[in-house]
Amino acid sequence: MSNFGFFELRLVNPYEAAFREARSAVNAQEILAGAREYPTLAAAVADCGLVVGTTSIGHRALEHPLRRLEYGARLLSKKMAEAPVALLFGSEKFGLSNEDMSYCHWLMRIPTRREHGSMNLGQAVAVCLYEIVRSPVAATAKPEPRRPAKAEDLERLTTLLEEVLERSGYVHARVEGSTRMKIRRMVRRLDLNVHDAEVWLGMMRQILWKLERGE
Amino acid sequence: MSNFGFFELRLVNPYEAAFREARSAVNAQEILAGAREYPTLAAAVADCGLVVGTTSIGHRALEHPLRRLEYGARLLSKKMAEAPVALLFGSEKFGLSNEDMSYCHWLMRIPTRREHGSMNLGQAVAVCLYEIVRSPVAATAKPEPRRPAKAEDLERLTTLLEEVLERSGYVHARVEGSTRMKIRRMVRRLDLNVHDAEVWLGMMRQILWKLERGE
Repeated sequence: MSNFGFFELRLVNPYEAAFREARSAVNAQEILAGAREYPTLAAAVADCGLVVGTTSIGHRALEHPLRRLEYGARLLSKKMAEAPVALLFGSEKFGLSNEDMSYCHWLMRIPTRREHGSMNLGQAVAVCLYEIVRSPVAATAKPEPRRPAKAEDLERLTTLLEEVLERSGYVHARVEGSTRMKIRRMVRRLDLNVHDAEVWLGMMRQILWKLERGE
Repeated sequence: MSNFGFFELRLVNPYEAAFREARSAVNAQEILAGAREYPTLAAAVADCGLVVGTTSIGHRALEHPLRRLEYGARLLSKKMAEAPVALLFGSEKFGLSNEDMSYCHWLMRIPTRREHGSMNLGQAVAVCLYEIVRSPVAATAKPEPRRPAKAEDLERLTTLLEEVLERSGYVHARVEGSTRMKIRRMVRRLDLNVHDAEVWLGMMRQILWKLERGE
């Protein structure tokens, strides 16, 4: 909750031992200290304009609309602008009861695989809240701008690499035209940025200097 | 992992106590039993075509491209079709070290709020894997088809409600034109479906019958 900016935790009949233990959560003490306990679900959601329950796939016949998280979170976000919204999670072992669900406007499910539907409670909460704060714009982001190496630097690197390969004996004679073209293309495929091209040029110069000295 | 259909867990220098304890995870025994331990990170990711590290926001200066989960997961999914991909998580306490990160092609961060960046390990894994299997199509889903009540049933319900209000004394005399229109609009705003309209009609008929008998 704290990670994704949700601060109001309401508890109905919590398992005291687990709850007390959780109070040590790093950075989330405020949320836990401010959590309020309610005797009934009805009391906990009394001031809410929308109550959404969570359930795992393959659940017993449901009379409620059951929405996938991807879609449900959008409806829920919209409503959050108008009124307090409650997102309900059941106990880890049994989930929400049919009676709990009868207080809900609709239900939401995380798209887990059919063979393993039930989730760890904390993980389920994290996934739901993430989907609510998730940015669709960020998903379609353009790759971050990068500064590709200039062609003249790539050509310098190509020439240096040729000389290093000659001096080191990787190629036996003077590099020929077809080999030069292969090396040139291989260097381009490295897709170097400005900074890395400079570093590679420096390394190659040093290697070449050492090779020349050694002769 | 099991919830979202990821089955290959690799561990580098795991904390034995925690790992053994986790082996009891409901439905996920197979993944834990099949988990392989590696002496070094290099060995663990040796066969991977892409290695992506996870890190929290506000991290020390990074030399790697740092991508938001929404975008990074798309790149990662694409690569998964070509080669094994490793998604790295550090220890809960310290995260990935700079040396760990140097094995990564790039880094990814979950969009947590700035004031509380570091996440519970299991929750961070769940959120990342959810984003990978998440369906963009499901997010833009049309509302599920519903069968709205027919106008003639709504009009029947309006008439019944009027009679009930008269008999019960909620309105004192015969319902007038302007009141009738208010009730008619109010009934339409209920936005009933076919099934619920029938139930409401049945309830109103019964209430009216009882009110008539009582006179």
